[in-house]
Amino acid sequence: MARPTPLSGFPEWLPDGRAVEQHVLDVLRRTFELHGFAGIETRAVEPLDQLLRKGETSKEVYVLRRLQEEADGEETPSDRSEKQLGLHFDLTVPFARYVLENAGRLAFPFKRYQIQKVWRGERPQDGRFREFVQADIDVVGAGELPYHFEVELPLVMAEALGALRDVGVPEVRILVNNRKVAEGFYRGLGLDDVEGVLRQVDKLDKIGPEAVADLLVAEQGATPEQAKACLELAAIAGQDVAVVERVRSLAASYDAVTELLETGLGELGALIEAAARRAPGVVVADLKIARGLDYYTGSVYETVLVGHEQLGSICSGGRYDTLASDGKNTYPGVGLSVGVSRLVSRLLAAGLVTATRGVPTAVLVAVADEESRPQSDAVAAALRGRGVPADVAPSAAKFGKQIKYADRRGIPFVWFPAAAGEDGEPVAGPLLGQVKDIRSGDQADADAASWEPPAQDLWPRVVPAGE
Amino acid sequence: MARPTPLSGFPEWLPDGRAVEQHVLDVLRRTFELHGFAGIETRAVEPLDQLLRKGETSKEVYVLRRLQEEADGEETPSDRSEKQLGLHFDLTVPFARYVLENAGRLAFPFKRYQIQKVWRGERPQDGRFREFVQADIDVVGAGELPYHFEVELPLVMAEALGALRDVGVPEVRILVNNRKVAEGFYRGLGLDDVEGVLRQVDKLDKIGPEAVADLLVAEQGATPEQAKACLELAAIAGQDVAVVERVRSLAASYDAVTELLETGLGELGALIEAAARRAPGVVVADLKIARGLDYYTGSVYETVLVGHEQLGSICSGGRYDTLASDGKNTYPGVGLSVGVSRLVSRLLAAGLVTATRGVPTAVLVAVADEESRPQSDAVAAALRGRGVPADVAPSAAKFGKQIKYADRRGIPFVWFPAAAGEDGEPVAGPLLGQVKDIRSGDQADADAASWEPPAQDLWPRVVPAGE
Repeated sequence: MARPTPLSGFPEWLPDGRAVEQHVLDVLRRTFELHGFAGIETRAVEPLDQLLRKGETSKEVYVLRRLQEEADGEETPSDRSEKQLGLHFDLTVPFARYVLENAGRLAFPFKRYQIQKVWRGERPQDGRFREFVQADIDVVGAGELPYHFEVELPLVMAEALGALRDVGVPEVRILVNNRKVAEGFYRGLGLDDVEGVLRQVDKLDKIGPEAVADLLVAEQGATPEQAKACLELAAIAGQDVAVVERVRSLAASYDAVTELLETGLGELGALIEAAARRAPGVVVADLKIARGLDYYTGSVYETVLVGHEQLGSICSGGRYDTLASDGKNTYPGVGLSVGVSRLVSRLLAAGLVTATRGVPTAVLVAVADEESRPQSDAVAAALRGRGVPADVAPSAAKFGKQIKYADRRGIPFVWFPAAAGEDGEPVAGPLLGQVKDIRSGDQADADAASWEPPAQDLWPRVVPAGE
Repeated sequence: MARPTPLSGFPEWLPDGRAVEQHVLDVLRRTFELHGFAGIETRAVEPLDQLLRKGETSKEVYVLRRLQEEADGEETPSDRSEKQLGLHFDLTVPFARYVLENAGRLAFPFKRYQIQKVWRGERPQDGRFREFVQADIDVVGAGELPYHFEVELPLVMAEALGALRDVGVPEVRILVNNRKVAEGFYRGLGLDDVEGVLRQVDKLDKIGPEAVADLLVAEQGATPEQAKACLELAAIAGQDVAVVERVRSLAASYDAVTELLETGLGELGALIEAAARRAPGVVVADLKIARGLDYYTGSVYETVLVGHEQLGSICSGGRYDTLASDGKNTYPGVGLSVGVSRLVSRLLAAGLVTATRGVPTAVLVAVADEESRPQSDAVAAALRGRGVPADVAPSAAKFGKQIKYADRRGIPFVWFPAAAGEDGEPVAGPLLGQVKDIRSGDQADADAASWEPPAQDLWPRVVPAGE
């Protein structure tokens, strides 16, 4: 087998990169759980017809086929279409299905987090992942869902991402908007193809305001004045409730105040006010946030890393009045999703974050000769029994080589069992020995029944690079 | 959307089942890390030609196709075959590829654990999973790998599974054999189609000794006496090294002692001896263990739950002299794999294990009225800040209803903020209030800046059912 090469779009990390990713996942999970979100996992596949319910995503789906399917002859072409399975491209579609499938056995409002891989059958392009980890939080109600969850969910995510700041993740800022504000404003202007207008406004960052204005006129049939109004709305941003007044004045100047706009402004104002109180500086109203997906009906969120805004949103979501519906009941929800792989790959590529070592091991127990390996095993077992990650040297090489083995892996301590202190002097007792900090060279007598490494050396830590 | 139904072979758990699975994964991970195994993840897909290198598994592969592949016209049929991707059906094939791909950047011997989903495109059959989680540990060397790892790896797995005993997982027993013993014995008998004989012997548990003897004669061309010898070997089992002598005597009685047999018996004896010393009673030699896969070259392992042997092996593996090879270097390894989904589904189905609650929340902070929600939010934030998982009631319903909300989720404590003690008496200070243990009904004054639930109530615990 020739040396294999990476597959474009399918990221993998070396052990120290994976340690960073695992730390990010652990921190997110802990924050979600502190807020009472229950963890679930859904299967990786959904029936193709469910995945294709939203036309826009159809080109991103990986369809599955059993290699021996035709050979088995068990399915006729007509029923195969029903049974066809595809890999999920997000965690929202499977969550909606899970809620419907288990509605009778879940307690609503149901708060769940879900950390899983998703797949998108994209054409390979620079920087686009075809497999990546997402971490989602959602709360879903049966029939109704109070507005205050639209305030809480982005704050939970801000706290989760903020808990990563001490490992070098930049400060986050959550940009919020409200679909009702945009829709109310456009309708007030007389632009009724709200989806179409949002789709053009969503291109602002890519093509700039003039090109968007041209598109609004050419594609949406807007007058130049209507297009100007749309751009003026999109230019409004700010951290305090004054934003609400600015939008209201703008709408009034175009005689475009609607009931829907007022409802949206009420919600947006409440969100900004509560966020400013509970997490000052984190949430910013930004009226150009559109979000492509058509199921958002209230608040919408995007998240940028401060100082790295050009990277785009690392965490997005919003409120949807109908996450799922089984005809009898409707399940409204609100949620956000972090693109963990994208975040981790940026942290690693930018050299912002590192793991103090690539193996869990804190102590390598040296082996004087193969006959005395049981003694080294006993020392390692005693250390592990007290929660100290320990490994035993793979061979009874010269001690210098065993120290090099530890050094190469970043293992901070090497233990020399009693019968074979490095100086050749046996020390009494099977768990007695000497332990060397290979960074400082310090070596001292120690008892494996009680010795502990300093807390900061017990487990690998993920720290800002250069620390 | 009608209520969806589960897909056969794709298990999913409700939140309390997932809590059990997560606990199992956490315990496995911690044990692996205490032993110095580094965690990695590999992508879910591998090139189809790599997955098909072992013919026997070909029918189990799910092949991927981008839904818009043909429409894009980017690939001609001839080059598509090369690029075709399939979902991995185990974690060994991807690990071998990962080792080759990153050989220059890994330190050998490389110890890694890997916990991921795998997929098998099986025909739907009762009890067969098509998607399931595996937890693997392997150690792989560059060029060589000392024998002692064949002793250590099953003991690590035994410790990991043993750490689950206090949540109700039955005791495990690891059944070991050595491919060299079987091969040396068969060749000594004059049976040179070793694979074929092993394949028949592997059917013992299913079809019984007489049918296996018939197959050995009919399919492998064995004489009745050779078949009898094979069955006699397969009947040998035991916990101490006397087993080695029994095999040697049996071989001598058939004049079937070979050098390979002696090498194998030396290894098997060393494994049993070391295992008896380090983990008495866990490892049992069982000469009928064959393992279907043809790449094992030394020790082979299966694992049964004591008292539930009929469930089959929950954790299997072995030694392979060539996990991977790039022509220049060969990478021998030894590893074991636990079928986590199968284990968890059995624990749940048999009602052996349960989670103390289905949500992480220890404390539900009640809300007296929507105006005072900020106070409840502040109490919850103070609790979370000290690591106590807390949730805030979704609506300012009657307190009785809020208590019922907690009760339904198994949340043990309800907090009544100061301004609204349950008796209507306001208590001073925003973080002061009363906390009620809804199981006992006990209610007492408390300060969210210092109050803690009893340790056993802080997080949900996974416990033997009925505890």
